[in-house]
Parts: sequence; structure tokens; C-alpha cells
Amino acid sequence: MDQQHTETFRGVEAATGEPLELAFPAQSAADVAPVCKAAGAAFDAYRATSSEARAAFLEAIGDEIMALGDPLLKRAELESGLPAARLTGERGRTVGQLRLFADLVRSDRWRGVRIDPALPDREPLPRPDLRLRMIPLGPVAVFGASNFPLAFSTAGGDTASALAAGCPVVVKGHPAHPGTDSMVAGAIARAAEKTGMPTGVFGHVMGTGNELGAALVRDPNIAAVGFTGSRAGGLALAAIAQEREVPIPVYAEMSSVNPVVLLPGALSENAAALGAAFVGSLTMGAGQFCTNPGLVIAVDSPDLRAFEAAAAEVVAGAAGQVMLTSGIREAYQAGVARLEAAAPVELLATGGDSLACQATARLFAVTGRAVADVPELLDEVFGASSLIVRCEDADELQSVLAGLEGQLTATLHLSASDHAQAASLLPILERKCGRILVNGWPTGVEVAHAMVHGGPFPATIDGRTTSVGTLAIERFLRPVSYQNMPADLLPPELHDDAGVPRLVDGKLA
Amino acid sequence: MDQQHTETFRGVEAATGEPLELAFPAQSAADVAPVCKAAGAAFDAYRATSSEARAAFLEAIGDEIMALGDPLLKRAELESGLPAARLTGERGRTVGQLRLFADLVRSDRWRGVRIDPALPDREPLPRPDLRLRMIPLGPVAVFGASNFPLAFSTAGGDTASALAAGCPVVVKGHPAHPGTDSMVAGAIARAAEKTGMPTGVFGHVMGTGNELGAALVRDPNIAAVGFTGSRAGGLALAAIAQEREVPIPVYAEMSSVNPVVLLPGALSENAAALGAAFVGSLTMGAGQFCTNPGLVIAVDSPDLRAFEAAAAEVVAGAAGQVMLTSGIREAYQAGVARLEAAAPVELLATGGDSLACQATARLFAVTGRAVADVPELLDEVFGASSLIVRCEDADELQSVLAGLEGQLTATLHLSASDHAQAASLLPILERKCGRILVNGWPTGVEVAHAMVHGGPFPATIDGRTTSVGTLAIERFLRPVSYQNMPADLLPPELHDDAGVPRLVDGKLA
Repeated sequence: MDQQHTETFRGVEAATGEPLELAFPAQSAADVAPVCKAAGAAFDAYRATSSEARAAFLEAIGDEIMALGDPLLKRAELESGLPAARLTGERGRTVGQLRLFADLVRSDRWRGVRIDPALPDREPLPRPDLRLRMIPLGPVAVFGASNFPLAFSTAGGDTASALAAGCPVVVKGHPAHPGTDSMVAGAIARAAEKTGMPTGVFGHVMGTGNELGAALVRDPNIAAVGFTGSRAGGLALAAIAQEREVPIPVYAEMSSVNPVVLLPGALSENAAALGAAFVGSLTMGAGQFCTNPGLVIAVDSPDLRAFEAAAAEVVAGAAGQVMLTSGIREAYQAGVARLEAAAPVELLATGGDSLACQATARLFAVTGRAVADVPELLDEVFGASSLIVRCEDADELQSVLAGLEGQLTATLHLSASDHAQAASLLPILERKCGRILVNGWPTGVEVAHAMVHGGPFPATIDGRTTSVGTLAIERFLRPVSYQNMPADLLPPELHDDAGVPRLVDGKLA
Repeated sequence: MDQQHTETFRGVEAATGEPLELAFPAQSAADVAPVCKAAGAAFDAYRATSSEARAAFLEAIGDEIMALGDPLLKRAELESGLPAARLTGERGRTVGQLRLFADLVRSDRWRGVRIDPALPDREPLPRPDLRLRMIPLGPVAVFGASNFPLAFSTAGGDTASALAAGCPVVVKGHPAHPGTDSMVAGAIARAAEKTGMPTGVFGHVMGTGNELGAALVRDPNIAAVGFTGSRAGGLALAAIAQEREVPIPVYAEMSSVNPVVLLPGALSENAAALGAAFVGSLTMGAGQFCTNPGLVIAVDSPDLRAFEAAAAEVVAGAAGQVMLTSGIREAYQAGVARLEAAAPVELLATGGDSLACQATARLFAVTGRAVADVPELLDEVFGASSLIVRCEDADELQSVLAGLEGQLTATLHLSASDHAQAASLLPILERKCGRILVNGWPTGVEVAHAMVHGGPFPATIDGRTTSVGTLAIERFLRPVSYQNMPADLLPPELHDDAGVPRLVDGKLA
């Protein structure tokens, strides 16, 4: 950290609101340029590293994070208020994610090699030799998220996938967890040094206020942005990115209410058990998941009322939970107050006692007609609040679904008797979201090859991508074609004998 | 065509400026909504068609275009002024492109299937069954280009790749060739009917003025845009797309000067022959190619001057050629007048006599220092005009390249002695363009698997994609993941026994 910084800021203990030890430099927009310049200077050297070297770097980051040991978890717990068990799991997820991307890098599949050999005798014109590979976009700016201080922050999925693609990364740490952020940034820097990565491959800035992030997105060295956070934040960064002399993509994962549809057969078999399980997903981590089930949709019936009663009972018995920051808690309180004050909305349950810095769960209900009239009732309330929409019939349920904005997930609870209705809803849900679950709950996003953590606007800015899973690497790559390039000038993966997965004349070789 | 339209417009014979027979409806913004609504209504049915049915539709379009016979070529020749041989070749390219996409659809590779089977015994938590496929974005608006009345217009690459992806298409025909456009639109409509495609799978609007296209991009049914044309046009559509309630991607291929770098060894071996061949590429089709070589860069030397002399001789002997429209000709004349008036620019040659509606080629030269001082000298002049940049040394050549905007192509002319210098330039060129050619000319874009016709901004808006070749299909797809979906509700390609190419646990199965 630069000794010139006179401005500092501190982390805050989420559970008490008290400032924590260690003052961190509050960097300003002027501090961004040298970090980004170093990232730009590192780009060509870093993208030329072998798959093995890059994979070793990713694995070393995981090792260095593990080597931070309990102090990392303890600091994350203080700064986020999230429970220790959750953070232990999140660390495992973070390290596992880095290792998965290391495996992916070694597979060379992401290089997207295609070869169309020359056809010198073709009539009327010969075909040239054409060879295509994917290359990285350039340095990527990553914005740490408040709600996953490890897995969606400094060494999270955006960083892992960008580094895997061959892009240097500049992280803007989230000001809600500067200590966690600094420790992980140090781990990445040590891993880069130990594995001989070029200087500048990883940069890190931290501070408060929006100008720091804006300067990062404006910097001409930055070629893409990864962001997980609020809709307002994501749209602001996207607007800045569009105003640049050279516009760049912003991959912003923003807001989602993650509709859960309860079909009649499932309700008739399991109403009470479903109600209790639903609240388990709703209140996990104080509801501070992007995939939190903030909306339940069903045709009204005695079974639905039984579901509601069971869910309300669990909500009413749920103790308050610490929220990540005072700002998030205030936004949650404002969101539930808005619903409590809305005439057509019925409050079904409020959670039990809460201490300062804590918030309690809420469960609301409303009719399908009301949400058709006042669609703002469906706006996301980030935290453990959910709204049950009681529909008159299956047609109304379908039109409520069709009227939804883009979502990260949609969930169907169904039994054998519901399959025909489910089949009629699937085309609607596919157009609305990135992941469709059956008989589960949307919280818990597996880091896998077949995962999509993304979805149509405004769930994300760019519904063509995912921010979790190996497909996330494609966000940071672009194709380049080489025509009649002599073999000694070709990149290694485009040589005839490169041994990487490839399409030759459009067929897997 | 709707009989209510009272406003009409006519095509213009490019070679004479005279209006052609047949008046076409000049549709207005109000005509767009019903066409887009029909496309939206067709989407779910069309995307559910089998690969075989969709491929047959694409092939039928090709057959119907061929069935139009010589009258199509004749009309295109009248409207565009392009020579008959070129249009015959362009028709072959258009039909071949449709057949290539039909083959691609049948391969099912584009479906991007990934399966991560459930791991019920995994600790600490079981893994769910996850299955991913790519689905189409929704109806695509395609803007026909002026310079390829067949291959980049109504049934061109954007239409072929969007239909292949499962997206209905609404084409806005280019007003410079309404007759060609109408004939091809009719061929597509007949193919859709003969192969039983849903009503609305293909829509078509035509007219003059910008409001028609703006209304198309604003229509809420439209999910993506394909465009080939001017930078101003592409940026205007992109701005409209960003202002929508739900922003959509605009794939706009806009402007490029396609730098050609002549390395010393190549010049010393071949200066005169290279000069003549260069002008062949420069003047083909009156220079009206996106990949026209508008910029030549070399270290100044007697060999470069020999190249210039040879090129100038061919330019001076080149007859005038008909340009596509009077507007394009006027823009060309203004562009060359701007260069002729620029103090540091030397006019090396002007083409021979030209008739009305024709334009003649131009060849200019300038120093590397001058373009560093006045980068606007490098702005695209659409037509047969090229600027040779004489550099002082290899360092200046490198810095001219590094200062370029994004390009569709870059070309290196080299001999064995140039490989070391070429290797040092390749990382720069990779960051600037979508295709790098060696010892060839950039005009002539092969429709293939390994082609990239795209490049960093402002060559296109989105350098992550290509508008030519099979990779173009990916522009119109997005991933959806299915978690624990019962087999009878899964889409066909995600069944265990679907027999489509897929990754299972990240490995090719």
C-alpha cells in the first residue's frame, strides 16, 4: 500500500456497527491509472503464458488463500456478519472454483480452435488456410460484492474466470470488507510472484465512494468489467462503459426475485413441508443471496393457505440476523415498509426479536390481480422478505409469470400430476431466466460446467453469459482468425500437431 | 404488400440515376409493430422445430433464391451497379452460406449441451443434476447492407445465422435495392410456407428514412439486431437499443481501413507485382468492400517507392466504376477531396475517365509523423481510395499500428527474412483486428468455420463476435440451465440418449 495516502477508511463490525482495527488507504480516482497501466503492460506477457503455467497460478491462489487460515475467516465474519460455517463453506467454494478453472485452462477447450485447411484446387477460387483461436479481451476490472466476501469478491468467480482467460485483473475491493479483501489480494500477489507471473497481472484498489470505480471503468487499459451488486450500481457502470471512446462490455449481475411456482399437485402432497423448507431458503444468510426466493406464485387454494401457514409459523419463530452493512439493512427496512404500507398487500408473518444491526424476516401475500395493477410490488427487496402471489386460476398464474422481468432463476414445485401444466410453463420460464429448478430452492449455486448464473435483463446486463461455472470464461474471450499464416508465426495452439481440442472443417478432430 | 400504403418509393438504376420500374410501399414506423408481433408470436413454435426441419427451411430458402433465376441477378445489377459476374458469385455465396448453416444446425454442436450428473452422495452437500443448453434470444432485426445486395442483405449471413439459431427474423430491406430485396423476401416466404414453418418466422419491411429502422430496434418483440453499414448508422441503432426498457445487443459491422503492412523482405522481392495486385484488391467492386485495403504501411525505401509507382500506374489506368448509390458516391468524393486538400498528403494517382454515377480510384501517400499528428487522415473513405503511410523506421511503423482503431482485418506481406519482425507485430495486430492475413489481400471473406469477420470497436460494436462463418450463430444464443428436471420435461437435446454432441462433467462425451 502506498504510503502517500493520507485518507484512510476502516471496516465495520457488522454485528455491532463499531469500526474495526486497521486503517486502509482510501484510494482516489487518481490512484487507478498506474494500476491499470501495469495491467495493460502485463497483458501480452500474461496471455502468452502456457496453459500449465496459468493453471498453476490459479491453483497457487487457492493455496495462498488456504494458507491465510482462520484469521481470514475470522476477519470475514467480523466484517460481513455472516456465520463462520457459511464462510468456511464459501472459502471452500472459492478455492474449488479456482481449481476448476485451472482444470479448464489445462483442457484447452476454451481456446476454441478451428482449422479450415487450404483447398488450393477449389473452383472457382482456392480456399485459403484459415485457423481460429479465442484470445483474451484485455485487462478486466472486477468489483467485489458485499454479500460473498470470498466467492464473489477479490478472488471470486469473475477474477478466476478472467485470469483463466488470460486477462490481467484489477479488483476494486468492496468497502464493506476491506480487511478480507486486503488479505485475499495479498494471497493473489504472492501466488503471482511464486509462479512467475508478469508484474501487473493482478492489481487492487480500495476505497469508499463511487469515483474510484468510475475511474476504473473509464481507464483505457480496461477491456471488460465484472460486477455483482445492485441494479443502480450495475447500470451506472454500464452507462460509463458505453460513454467511453471505446465502449466495453460490463457483465453485471444485478437483481432478481427468483420466482418459485407451486403447482397444485405438489401443494396437495406437501404443503406444510414445502412451507418450512421455503423459509429455510428464504432466511439463509439473512436472505442476502442473489438467488433468494423473493416471490412465490400459486393458484389460491386451501393447500396454498396451508403452505402459507407453515411458512408463516417458521418466519415468526425466526430470530433476527445480522445484515452485511447498515446501508443494506436500511434498504431492507425501507423495502419491507413499502410492502407493509401497500394497500393490497397482506402481512403474513414477521420474524422474532432482533438486536441492533439485525433484521427480521417478512412474509407477505397479495393477489395476482394486484400485481398486474401494481407491478412495482414485485421489485426486489434484498434480504429475507418474500411475497406470495395468490392467483385466481392457472391462466392468471401464467400471465403473472409472463409479466415478470428477467430473472436469475425460476423454480417449479411439482408432482407427477403437474407435468402437463409444468410443460406449458417452461417456454415462458426459459425466456425469463438463466436457470430453472424443479423441486428445490434457488439458493446454492453449484460451481459446475452446466451452471448458468445469469439471465435476461435486469437479472444481468447481458443475458448471453453466466458469472458462475466454467462457461463464465467465454465472457472474456474473442475470436481471431489467421489466414495463410506460416507455421512458425502461428500461435502454438494453432499448429497442426498442437494436440488441443479443435474443429477441423467443422468436425471434432 | 399492404394495399393501404399510399406512399411508395422506387429503386434507382445505379449506372444512370434513373428511377426503375415497380413502385414499392414506403412503409412507416407504424407498419413495424404487426410484423414484429408476428415474429414474437412465432418464436416459441420456431425454436421448438427440430434441427432437420430448420435445416430444410434454410436449404429451401437457397433453392427458392436459385429458382428466381436470372431476373434476380439482372435486378441486382440494375440496382447496385455491380457487375453480373460478381453478383453471380455473390448469389452462390449466399446460397452456400444458407447450406452451411443448414449443416451446422444438423450437427447440433451449436446447442452447447453440457450435463453434470447428480452426485447424491457428495459431502458436505449432494450435487444436483444440471443440464445446460443454448436457446435462441428471440426475434432478430436484420438491416440489409447496400454493398452486398444478396450476401449481406435479406437472406444474407445475419438472416441465415439468426434463423439457424432458432430466431424469427424481421428484415429491413436496404432502400438502394428494393427490387432485389422484395424478390429475396418472397423466396424466403415461399420457403417458410413449403417447409411448414410458423407464420411470422420471417417478416419484411421496406421504406426510406431512418424512422422505420429505429421503430424496428425499439419494438419490444425484437431481441437482437444485425447490421452492416456505416459507423454513424450502427452507433445510432446501438444508442436506440441501449435506451430501450430492456436493452438488446446490436451486432453492427461498421468501418475499417484494413491496414496492409509491407515488410522489407517482401518489398525487396516483389515490389512491382505487389503494387499491381494491391490495386486489384483496392478497385474490386469500386472499392465498396468492408475489407477494402484503405491503408498501406511500410518503412520508406526505394522498394516502397517501386511499389507505389507500380500501384500508381495501375490506378491511373483504371476506368471509373459505377458506385452503389449517389449518396455513397458523394461521400466518396468528399472523402477523397478531404485527403486531396490535406497539406501533408501527397496524391500519387487518380483513376482514368469516369461517367456520371461513376467514381475513380485514388492513391495517396503520407508520412508516419503526419498520421501521428493528424489521426483523422486514417478515417475510412468508403470506396477505391487508399493511403500509403511511409514510416521512418520499424519503430515508427510499430507505433502507427499501435495507434490504429479496431479493424476487421490486418495483412502482412512478408518473406522469409521478415518473420522476426512479423512475430513482433502479431501481438499488436491481434489486439486490433479479427483476422490477420499473410501474403494475400483482405477482400474476399471466406464463409467457413474458422472465419472471423468482426473486430474491436469501431470495426464492429462487439468485437467478441463474427458476422460471417458458422461462429456467427453464437450471437443469437444464450445459455439456460435445468436443475433436477424430470426427464419427460427436459428439452429433447438434454435427454441422456439424445445423441447430440455434449460435455459430460466437462469432458466431451
